[in-house]
Amino acid sequence: MAKNITPKEKDYSQWYLDVIRAAELADYAPVRGCMVVRPTGYSIWEMVQRHFDDAFKETGHVNAAFPLLIPQSFLSKEAEHVEGFAPECAVVTHAGGEELEEPLIIRPTSETVIGYMYSKWVQSWRDLPILINQWCNVMRWEKRPRLFLRTSEFLWQEGHTAHSSKEEAVEETLRMLDVYKKIMTECLALPVIPGEKTEGERFPGADNTYTCETMMSDKKALQAGTSHYLGQNFAKAFEIQFQNRNGEMEFAYTTSWGVSTRLIGALIMTHSDNDGLILPPNVAPTKAVIIPISTDAAKLENEIMPKAKELQEALNKSLGGRYVQIDTQFHLRPGDRFFFHLQKGVPVRIELGEKEFASEQVRVVRRDTGEKENVTWSGISSKIPGLLADIQSSLYTRALNFRLENTHHAKNMDEFKKMLESKGGFIEVYFDGTKEDEKAIKEATGATPRCMPLEFAGERGKCFYTGRENARKTIFAKAY
Amino acid sequence: MAKNITPKEKDYSQWYLDVIRAAELADYAPVRGCMVVRPTGYSIWEMVQRHFDDAFKETGHVNAAFPLLIPQSFLSKEAEHVEGFAPECAVVTHAGGEELEEPLIIRPTSETVIGYMYSKWVQSWRDLPILINQWCNVMRWEKRPRLFLRTSEFLWQEGHTAHSSKEEAVEETLRMLDVYKKIMTECLALPVIPGEKTEGERFPGADNTYTCETMMSDKKALQAGTSHYLGQNFAKAFEIQFQNRNGEMEFAYTTSWGVSTRLIGALIMTHSDNDGLILPPNVAPTKAVIIPISTDAAKLENEIMPKAKELQEALNKSLGGRYVQIDTQFHLRPGDRFFFHLQKGVPVRIELGEKEFASEQVRVVRRDTGEKENVTWSGISSKIPGLLADIQSSLYTRALNFRLENTHHAKNMDEFKKMLESKGGFIEVYFDGTKEDEKAIKEATGATPRCMPLEFAGERGKCFYTGRENARKTIFAKAY
Repeated sequence: MAKNITPKEKDYSQWYLDVIRAAELADYAPVRGCMVVRPTGYSIWEMVQRHFDDAFKETGHVNAAFPLLIPQSFLSKEAEHVEGFAPECAVVTHAGGEELEEPLIIRPTSETVIGYMYSKWVQSWRDLPILINQWCNVMRWEKRPRLFLRTSEFLWQEGHTAHSSKEEAVEETLRMLDVYKKIMTECLALPVIPGEKTEGERFPGADNTYTCETMMSDKKALQAGTSHYLGQNFAKAFEIQFQNRNGEMEFAYTTSWGVSTRLIGALIMTHSDNDGLILPPNVAPTKAVIIPISTDAAKLENEIMPKAKELQEALNKSLGGRYVQIDTQFHLRPGDRFFFHLQKGVPVRIELGEKEFASEQVRVVRRDTGEKENVTWSGISSKIPGLLADIQSSLYTRALNFRLENTHHAKNMDEFKKMLESKGGFIEVYFDGTKEDEKAIKEATGATPRCMPLEFAGERGKCFYTGRENARKTIFAKAY
Repeated sequence: MAKNITPKEKDYSQWYLDVIRAAELADYAPVRGCMVVRPTGYSIWEMVQRHFDDAFKETGHVNAAFPLLIPQSFLSKEAEHVEGFAPECAVVTHAGGEELEEPLIIRPTSETVIGYMYSKWVQSWRDLPILINQWCNVMRWEKRPRLFLRTSEFLWQEGHTAHSSKEEAVEETLRMLDVYKKIMTECLALPVIPGEKTEGERFPGADNTYTCETMMSDKKALQAGTSHYLGQNFAKAFEIQFQNRNGEMEFAYTTSWGVSTRLIGALIMTHSDNDGLILPPNVAPTKAVIIPISTDAAKLENEIMPKAKELQEALNKSLGGRYVQIDTQFHLRPGDRFFFHLQKGVPVRIELGEKEFASEQVRVVRRDTGEKENVTWSGISSKIPGLLADIQSSLYTRALNFRLENTHHAKNMDEFKKMLESKGGFIEVYFDGTKEDEKAIKEATGATPRCMPLEFAGERGKCFYTGRENARKTIFAKAY
């Protein structure tokens, strides 16, 4: 067991912070609530970005950059939106040595300013759809910060689209939810549940919010990404109007959707163990590390290192990128060098010591299970890609099984409370309550409705809270 | 000639804005001085980013993300730095519904906050060098904004490195200057002059600033990127200390270097003409556009479009990416479709009309020269890569020749003034004046020292201003 990491069974929050510190993923900044994403953490974010960005472009989206600062008055143009975001805003009152006539807020999200620009760009149905995404930083002032999960500044992407019909906009909302699900399951190995949010959990200003919900290893839920159908709300507030095919003026139908650096928090809390970070190979910047070992400096330099470099080159070629590193921390003991990379979550360690060298082999160690195996030099290039694929699918299956084991059912409030207290995790119920009911349940139990899974969209039953029939299947849980 | 673009001879500033508007590169944001980079502009920035980011990574650098907000007191820790940047700062005074105890500034550059973090990460010489870059937005309040060239918010990269010796830090400063020069010349086709800044033009807090200076098509200079040797100034201000190999505590030696979205302004003002944008192929997101043309809808659908797609696929394959688009704006006249892509700067247009189809050819048109040529379908895949390479080198050569033709020499202030008034451009002189002399020359002529070219580092002569011998060769010009 790692000495620098508190066991998760003892103190989950501390374990989380210790894993981050040991892997050098992030650090708190000097401004309270803000974060520095360190190179190791950022390189994971770059991997995550690449997967999402490729998928956005494949579905016809383009990137752009909208401004950081938004006139305070913009926020007020959509009533629910200002109510939701105003309390979290950071406000610029002075600039260039003068007090500003109107205070500016640092974007907490960009529906308002993007709506304003779209109104200038859209005249005719021919100008639609607009399918734009931006990768940027946003600011939501946070009183109880937690690295990656809740920080005042965070990095994210926000897609903003405008369409000429409701049908097309709803289709876009669901398409992007599906893109999210695909990348989260296939690349991040997160077994997410795509679903619809209940009224009380909707994005401020949305007609409908969809989410990918996932379970952390402490059985709490985490919202991994959301996709909103905004109806004509922002189009009306910012006058995004177009002449339709019949020559009539009509307000556009808009959507927005986002994922953030919070996903790195999800990766940590889904896969990692008491030794530190575990990364799914598809988002691991370093997929394998070769550790050349010898106390004989000449042997190291003339025989073992050249072989290590040869293997690195062959492996990089078979993996299609610079994914294999060589560890050269020769001033450390081998065990410390192993642990260094283990704590950074590198999926596969390849040891090349004198014994292995003599038998023309390497010793291959899986990060997820610790399993060890000797592999011949000639076999290594064909071995590793399959091993990485196996680690990827094992991590997914392990997380999925964990969620299934910790998902329970409740027919009424009594069962619900008992289940939540004795077992925790996800509680599946039928629910048709109001926003006020959601609030009352949260106050009584700490749990909130996470989503109405799309998988069960056609299923109906008796509400565990109101007792009314024809309620939709809904998952409740305590959440991040 | 384009009706929507003012000729550059008539009004250069208006021409610049018209080119940007016609190509849909950027727009002013609702907050004064801020900019929206539209998808076409952003896709160029993505190409530029990729070239630089690859080169940074090849030279051992890694990316990270530092915070947007910096405590106001940090700025004051380096005396010259605060003097340089305080007047341009945007200040956050309120957040989360409360007035802040200490105002926060939006980063104008990140030496201070990064210095603070490095002081926590660095203990021993083994922790050095630190070679970190970040891609982010920065804010410098601008009273006379100009799209891409001077906006209150802009996008850039800032590299920040810390080293255990002066030699290594100076070497890094020059290495990155060289990386800049390489990408600027080879990818952006900008014939930049790498040089050292004079005292009056140094970065606030730097011991030495190096620059890549380049000439725009109105003969004014533009600073395309800078690399700073910061000595121990920031290390002392933020206590970046390390134990050296002798066991003694020592302050680190730091560097910083950056390029920004201003490079897109440089691309426009170097290469474009009175018809609109011209892009060097190496930074063109769309390198060629195929225009299928027919008034016969059935022929278009069944014969010409399938052939266009086939050619697109073959060309993308030979170019190694999705660089070829098909224009499907069939509601427009062919001439308008040609002009649409011409104004977006697409290097090559490929027309496929009925006549070309019948002879199994396409008509290939170069954006830079307007030259037309018929090419057979079977020959197109091998033809286009070479044509793009030729356009790339032609643009570079044209810009270089323009600079050489507009570079003049002056021996004394009289010649200097006359040359500047009658011919403009770059004036090469020998110069050894002070900061105050630089100021006086600027007030008298509007020109500033752009750089002391590294190419002539060993050459000395008599100063055109002070008359002293042993002065260094220096380029003066009016500048953006």
